[in-house]
Amino acid sequence: MIKETQIIEALQKVHKKSPLVHNITNYVVMNNTANALLAIGASPVMAHAVDEVEAMAGIASSLVINMGTLSEKWVDAMLLAGKKATADATDIVFDPVGVGATPYRTQVARQIIEACRPTIIRGNASEIMALYDSNVATKGVDSTVSGNIALESAKLLAQSTQAVVVISGESDYIIDGEKVVIIHNGTPIMAKVTGMGCTASAIIGAFAGAEEDRLVASTSAMAVMGIAGEMATEKSAGPGSMQMNFIDALYAISDKEIENRLKASL
Amino acid sequence: MIKETQIIEALQKVHKKSPLVHNITNYVVMNNTANALLAIGASPVMAHAVDEVEAMAGIASSLVINMGTLSEKWVDAMLLAGKKATADATDIVFDPVGVGATPYRTQVARQIIEACRPTIIRGNASEIMALYDSNVATKGVDSTVSGNIALESAKLLAQSTQAVVVISGESDYIIDGEKVVIIHNGTPIMAKVTGMGCTASAIIGAFAGAEEDRLVASTSAMAVMGIAGEMATEKSAGPGSMQMNFIDALYAISDKEIENRLKASL
Amino acid sequence: MIKETQIIEALQKVHKKSPLVHNITNYVVMNNTANALLAIGASPVMAHAVDEVEAMAGIASSLVINMGTLSEKWVDAMLLAGKKATADATDIVFDPVGVGATPYRTQVARQIIEACRPTIIRGNASEIMALYDSNVATKGVDSTVSGNIALESAKLLAQSTQAVVVISGESDYIIDGEKVVIIHNGTPIMAKVTGMGCTASAIIGAFAGAEEDRLVASTSAMAVMGIAGEMATEKSAGPGSMQMNFIDALYAISDKEIENRLKASL
Repeated sequence: MIKETQIIEALQKVHKKSPLVHNITNYVVMNNTANALLAIGASPVMAHAVDEVEAMAGIASSLVINMGTLSEKWVDAMLLAGKKATADATDIVFDPVGVGATPYRTQVARQIIEACRPTIIRGNASEIMALYDSNVATKGVDSTVSGNIALESAKLLAQSTQAVVVISGESDYIIDGEKVVIIHNGTPIMAKVTGMGCTASAIIGAFAGAEEDRLVASTSAMAVMGIAGEMATEKSAGPGSMQMNFIDALYAISDKEIENRLKASL
Repeated sequence: MIKETQIIEALQKVHKKSPLVHNITNYVVMNNTANALLAIGASPVMAHAVDEVEAMAGIASSLVINMGTLSEKWVDAMLLAGKKATADATDIVFDPVGVGATPYRTQVARQIIEACRPTIIRGNASEIMALYDSNVATKGVDSTVSGNIALESAKLLAQSTQAVVVISGESDYIIDGEKVVIIHNGTPIMAKVTGMGCTASAIIGAFAGAEEDRLVASTSAMAVMGIAGEMATEKSAGPGSMQMNFIDALYAISDKEIENRLKASL
Repeated sequence: MIKETQIIEALQKVHKKSPLVHNITNYVVMNNTANALLAIGASPVMAHAVDEVEAMAGIASSLVINMGTLSEKWVDAMLLAGKKATADATDIVFDPVGVGATPYRTQVARQIIEACRPTIIRGNASEIMALYDSNVATKGVDSTVSGNIALESAKLLAQSTQAVVVISGESDYIIDGEKVVIIHNGTPIMAKVTGMGCTASAIIGAFAGAEEDRLVASTSAMAVMGIAGEMATEKSAGPGSMQMNFIDALYAISDKEIENRLKASL
């Protein structure tokens, strides 16, 4: 479905275009996602005021909506920005952090999907299952099941929303209708760094802002995440140094690293 | 009052249970405290919307309320979450950041104590004194006095609130009614990393979520903070690398490190 | 206009006084700017509630207003704090992050300048141009032009506002009426770390809180930023390690480092 060269070309497009990625995201990860976007060659902007999100979405190459630390005004801003992006045919990456943990999160996630029509949705396995089936409860923001368990939910979600759906975890599944691509890169310690999933969503935003094919963009982003994760893990004594080395790895990642390290069912 | 083995067992309980710690905390430290909680083996969640804090507190093992960057809506959320946690007999750790620096902070801190009845209160010496006596003014968020000066205030505060009171500083004092435990671990450079006190409160939340005895939980958390601080300081060139190495140390800390390094009046 | 010894003395004043710097700043950089302020020897406080900003500004040595992630309530707080600081003759550093990117940002930036009368304004070249001429559009928060292009706008802005104006970039220009000081220190990778400009504004706040002469304070801060940037770059493999080493460098910077490394047109 996808060739390795398409992943390499997608990274080159990000480096060349330096897409402006508009993030409406959570307080926990803002610094990290901004740094990750800069490191991969994109230009991040964080803006959430209802007075400006439409204007900001209007000049952005892509929009990332992450509901990690949501509240009323922020949801208003997400909806406004999302509608503007959809009207402009700008890609929207939606990260339904912690959906299923509280009724409010589940309701907001549904509202965003209906009103904004995100073109890419990324979550961990628990979140993707909770997004499709409101009877699934999650424990906070960490996944309690592995990716393949969520595959059926993800396919149904992809079909009902027309979005590319990404399940991140030990293996990453990228689903476009009936097509399923799997990335096997990454390391266990990545789950010990807060906001690694949020960073994945932001990096998908960078690729979606430079590469038109959403399946290629999403797959390339997850490949880069996993490979940078491996590069960083080799240098890290724990999750603290991992967080730092991961940014360095995103900055250093090259065609050759992708060629040498990619483990995928494309 | 406490045996060293109880501290080691408390850490094992955290590792085994991976308690869900619900944090309503400040913007400055969210990333660090989330990473610290992951590193020690807990599962952090940050949520502050009035629409969901009760539901989130309802599934949490403990609640941490930190008023570092407070504002009206956030205080509403703290009160809602706190009342729910108290109703559920879930431990509440309260961190009165900067109390005494402005009248608003002093008023909110009192309101939280009265309405939420926190079971553990942690602050630096200035904060604990200002919390007990509204005539004490503090300079911003950093302490201007040492811990033993605040000991009398802390005892009176512990008696009037029924909470375990922790004064963190060069030595850490953990007070439960008439009982006083002292931890002598830690290094001066810890005071040069922003939010180290906030991280201590979060780590107390992790221990309180896994260990029923509040004095043991609070003491164990402060012992782990001080020991991880020493481990990290040995590898650090300054406060930047200290912040990173501290997370690695929390992740690496073992029974043996506690046995070898603990300096305490238990 | 300025002697090298004045820069060294300004740093000594910061170390000696440990000025309380009140920051109303953006979510992305709060942790970094707090750590940077601690590392240079200042005492940071972040407070944005309308209920307390006047009281906090009233005890602060300087006020830093940064509109990176602005919204309605925060702007209200900026205006309140700014007016109080002006009434107290406390220095205000204003960082108009992303001005020109949306009409809202441009309007708020003008409002802050008019209502608060900041004594120092720092931005990148695009921002300074957009601040002076509303017909200039910027791309997000990163500059698209180099500093000397903005010099004329900066001079006119300095004259109309009576503020010292700082253009940061490859070279840093510090403008006081007709006087122009240039700092040539710094490295390209600094632009790959998010919030380096915001950190510069905070460090200016530290110096303005300890050194009365605004041109000396602003110049010293930019010299320290550039020199610490060079010290950190020598040890860094990428922007992740750069962010960390930069804090260590701010903590380590000495008279001798300034003497050895300063490249400036004073």
